[in-house]
Amino acid sequence: MTDKTRTRGRLPMQIPADAQRQGGPVSAARRRFLAGSAAAGGALAAGGLLGGKALAGNPENLPPNIPDWSRYLGAGVDAHPYGMPVEFESHVVRRNVEWLTATSESSVNFTPIHEMDGFVTPNGLCFERHHGGMAIVPPEDYRLMINGLVDRPLIFTYQDIMRFPPESRFHFLECAANSGMEWRGAQLNGVQYTHGMIHCVYYTGVPLKTLLQEAGVKTSAKWILAEGGDSAGMTRSIPLEKALDDCMVVYSMNGERLRAEQGYPVRLIVPGWEGNMWVKWLRRIEVGDKAWYHREETSKYTDLLPNGKARKFTWVMDAKSVITSPSPEKPMRAEGPQVLKGLAWSGHGRISRVDVSLDGGINWQAAQLHGPVLPKALTFFTLPFEWHGQELLLQSRAMDETGYVQPRMAALQEVRGVNSIYHNNSIQTWLVNANGVVDNVRLG
Amino acid sequence: MTDKTRTRGRLPMQIPADAQRQGGPVSAARRRFLAGSAAAGGALAAGGLLGGKALAGNPENLPPNIPDWSRYLGAGVDAHPYGMPVEFESHVVRRNVEWLTATSESSVNFTPIHEMDGFVTPNGLCFERHHGGMAIVPPEDYRLMINGLVDRPLIFTYQDIMRFPPESRFHFLECAANSGMEWRGAQLNGVQYTHGMIHCVYYTGVPLKTLLQEAGVKTSAKWILAEGGDSAGMTRSIPLEKALDDCMVVYSMNGERLRAEQGYPVRLIVPGWEGNMWVKWLRRIEVGDKAWYHREETSKYTDLLPNGKARKFTWVMDAKSVITSPSPEKPMRAEGPQVLKGLAWSGHGRISRVDVSLDGGINWQAAQLHGPVLPKALTFFTLPFEWHGQELLLQSRAMDETGYVQPRMAALQEVRGVNSIYHNNSIQTWLVNANGVVDNVRLG
Repeated sequence: MTDKTRTRGRLPMQIPADAQRQGGPVSAARRRFLAGSAAAGGALAAGGLLGGKALAGNPENLPPNIPDWSRYLGAGVDAHPYGMPVEFESHVVRRNVEWLTATSESSVNFTPIHEMDGFVTPNGLCFERHHGGMAIVPPEDYRLMINGLVDRPLIFTYQDIMRFPPESRFHFLECAANSGMEWRGAQLNGVQYTHGMIHCVYYTGVPLKTLLQEAGVKTSAKWILAEGGDSAGMTRSIPLEKALDDCMVVYSMNGERLRAEQGYPVRLIVPGWEGNMWVKWLRRIEVGDKAWYHREETSKYTDLLPNGKARKFTWVMDAKSVITSPSPEKPMRAEGPQVLKGLAWSGHGRISRVDVSLDGGINWQAAQLHGPVLPKALTFFTLPFEWHGQELLLQSRAMDETGYVQPRMAALQEVRGVNSIYHNNSIQTWLVNANGVVDNVRLG
Repeated sequence: MTDKTRTRGRLPMQIPADAQRQGGPVSAARRRFLAGSAAAGGALAAGGLLGGKALAGNPENLPPNIPDWSRYLGAGVDAHPYGMPVEFESHVVRRNVEWLTATSESSVNFTPIHEMDGFVTPNGLCFERHHGGMAIVPPEDYRLMINGLVDRPLIFTYQDIMRFPPESRFHFLECAANSGMEWRGAQLNGVQYTHGMIHCVYYTGVPLKTLLQEAGVKTSAKWILAEGGDSAGMTRSIPLEKALDDCMVVYSMNGERLRAEQGYPVRLIVPGWEGNMWVKWLRRIEVGDKAWYHREETSKYTDLLPNGKARKFTWVMDAKSVITSPSPEKPMRAEGPQVLKGLAWSGHGRISRVDVSLDGGINWQAAQLHGPVLPKALTFFTLPFEWHGQELLLQSRAMDETGYVQPRMAALQEVRGVNSIYHNNSIQTWLVNANGVVDNVRLG
């Protein structure tokens, strides 16, 4: 899975003076000389940022040579009505871990966050978590029922929902079990698997408050039940206060309609709260005066404590961050300047700061946050650094606008013990070995 | 192409009292009664927003009936490593107009903006404009040469570029010829074709300034030439001041690597300026002391004025907006409440305000801008309104933070005459007919 090759550093090769020409590409007659100089490499340009010698690829393609793709026509604009990634990126896919679950219908796959830049997740790479497989719901057959403690029980069609004033917002969706395997030590040697149950897209839909007002919520109401149309009948209890705050019934992600695996045609979003509550293929909203205590909020999505009691209703995803590159899937390729990349998020609001350590938490420096920094959304951060073959212990530590600081695992376990599966938001450590290989390790 | 069907209004159907149950879905034994009540429709809920009677789809699927997708397992998480849109959205694709160009290799297709919500364009739907078809460039063979008036002519590999500190920003890309057919009157009866040569994605890459500093720009330098690796050898002159301002050499869009049709592995972005300058498959940057006056800035991308002279170097895309729904492809489906949707943008910075008129510019009201409102990026706007079968003349008018106001076509033609192809940013008018059909019309 991880690319363990390590090449010598690349450089911006200095071009021999007599190869420097103005205007268009140089004729193919110059190929031999330039190919030769390329194979030999070149001295590091004075003041140049990058070091090393070797050159990748085919020297025949070095400018000012004329490669084939500059010689012949490519595909036209009618070739790909809906575009897909280029063949060279075919390794950038969602992946599942077969031994993790008994069936693929009640299972999860993971977003390849180590291959991604920025805070927006492309729809094709948003991780999937299904409990009864991916439901396929024809939009003309879709219905949403609102019943229970309401003045007017209602049934909405897809077109009904599209006709209410919409809102649009970016939000992250994180599974409560993201990083769950790591509670018992470093177990999955890849950031796609330790932290890939997360994505962040731009949602458009109708505030749940709007639909509840349409039905008229009785004064005795305190909770809602969200029920999915999938074969698992996914159901979760949500406090009315949250339902009336920032929950939305959405039909679009990143500009286009929801993908089937994300609940097409309509899903619930519960910003900042665990992904299991974001009910897909939303079929029914029941309004009640108490929680329902269904399967997903009792035997699942609760945390057994050392004293035998269980934490329940642990909805909010606390501030968390992870370094996505370097990572086990992104080993060091060369000595010299590097760019460290990562993601941070908080269910309580905006990320205010991310610190990065190269020495296992002894020294910290602030990473650059790439805007827009939005509440309850992913934030992309980077930090340039130098590497010359020394061992490193990479860590990132997120802070949010409430002042909360991402904890170490030892601090989490003092409170929660070692029985937990969910809500591991502790600091992750990557060991960079002298040979460039990166491993998942536990520092406590 | 356009769906001209018009159905009666939908409603949130009121549920008969004796069908109101608590808890999970009602047993299939209740089907007949509920199907019957569904077919009959229901009275409009008191205080309900929506009007009408008919119900779409299969009454067998009405809750609390149990449809098939709630009965049987769906596909597992290993079915789609890279996800695609659901079958019901297969009409949402880039489309080209065969009579518009002689070949598909030097042609354009259009983004289906009428089907989209929000300001982010999914990578698979970003319009394509090629002059020699889509080049396929293996990343290991990619090279970028910087030469001309520099201290150190350099050649960068793909990995070199990835090792410089990155920046990430949203920007719109608009072809200078977007809406170009409309200079001579309303000609293309669809917003995908009149305004679909635009997209907006989140780019990650290296500031061009960083790479130019690496090579060392001589004091005599005033311009750069950007040269593409495609078979058209696309080349444009860009003032050094812009190159050192906000231009970037990018390798990612919306979190994943560039799509081949968008210049994989590396393209230039020139925020706010015409798309033709955003050179794809970027092969060479030459630094010089004057413009090169290549084909794309002389015989093309200039505007012939009535006096026989031509406007040259018309780089900036001025403030513009368009209503994407209702539109010729999005006719009125029902009377009652509607949501008007549109997009606005400016090459000079942020959109400050969008006004909408339902009566051809006599009366205006401010639309809601959906954040984040970012400089030189698309801004999504909406406006709820009522329709009861009357004719409408829909217009939108954008203003940007410089105080510039989107003009009428008549005002543009006073200055530019009628020979223009490029830079039509005038107010667009849609006629909503009494039967719900929407047409492209010219009000002047």
